[in-house]
Amino acid sequence: MIICGIDPGVAIVGFGFIEKDGVKHKSLRHGVIRTPSDLSLEKRLLQIRGDLCQLFDMYEPRVLAVEELFFNTNVTTGINVAHARGVILLTAAERGIPVFSYSPQQVKQAVVGYGKAEKQQVMEMTRVLLNLPRVPRPDDAADALAVALCHSQASHSILKQL
Amino acid sequence: MIICGIDPGVAIVGFGFIEKDGVKHKSLRHGVIRTPSDLSLEKRLLQIRGDLCQLFDMYEPRVLAVEELFFNTNVTTGINVAHARGVILLTAAERGIPVFSYSPQQVKQAVVGYGKAEKQQVMEMTRVLLNLPRVPRPDDAADALAVALCHSQASHSILKQL
Repeated sequence: MIICGIDPGVAIVGFGFIEKDGVKHKSLRHGVIRTPSDLSLEKRLLQIRGDLCQLFDMYEPRVLAVEELFFNTNVTTGINVAHARGVILLTAAERGIPVFSYSPQQVKQAVVGYGKAEKQQVMEMTRVLLNLPRVPRPDDAADALAVALCHSQASHSILKQL
Repeated sequence: MIICGIDPGVAIVGFGFIEKDGVKHKSLRHGVIRTPSDLSLEKRLLQIRGDLCQLFDMYEPRVLAVEELFFNTNVTTGINVAHARGVILLTAAERGIPVFSYSPQQVKQAVVGYGKAEKQQVMEMTRVLLNLPRVPRPDDAADALAVALCHSQASHSILKQL
């Protein structure tokens, strides 16, 4: 099963496509979509959608896992991120790809086993779980892989409960 | 020139298509897109997009005018509204429809001539400017018409300055 994890943003969208085979996972591809700051918000959204469509065509994920948004710090940045997140959810929904949202605490709990883990711990565990030679870069790509792993863990737990 | 005004939301999206002929305006159509609360956010976004595409096909607006978002009260509601606003901006951008954003103060200033006008004053002036028999209902449709009028006023002012 291929899971797509997304770390939403307007300037930079992290993505990670992981393949789950039993309890093992591997990263098929991870990286970021970057949009130029001199473009209008709507044109940046258009680019995010176009690039995401290409990635969905290429990897045909079964599900999309994405972080919930919390606006504790910069509300203005948060508004823009939510614009992009809306476009990302729409793009999945149009293709019938189910969407699952996870809080940062859920991601940390799933990947590290501790909901208040440090960012570096999450990145290192993401590397280990995906058997990667080094921590994925940039951070947005690592975050996207982490939320994909979180979904895998959550769906595994659900199966165990059945 | 046909201007589409939008009052963004997830549960309810106000829209208003106005035609500008010199200094006169008329409403071609106004109303709301409603999405059921039992649908997931992504499916609600999908419905908004589908309905908006139909309206754009029907009225072929030259521009889209939409309110800026301010999160003074309920941040959680605001996050969802920004998701919908992202989908709305995307839908315009895909069709090459330029997007203009206005603050609530700009809308009040343009429609009533006073940036701190009461909501009822804005609605009544919207009715008068569009020569409607009664104040447009629901409020979301009236707000959408008001932002469309605001754009008309703003673009008129720009022309005068040239």
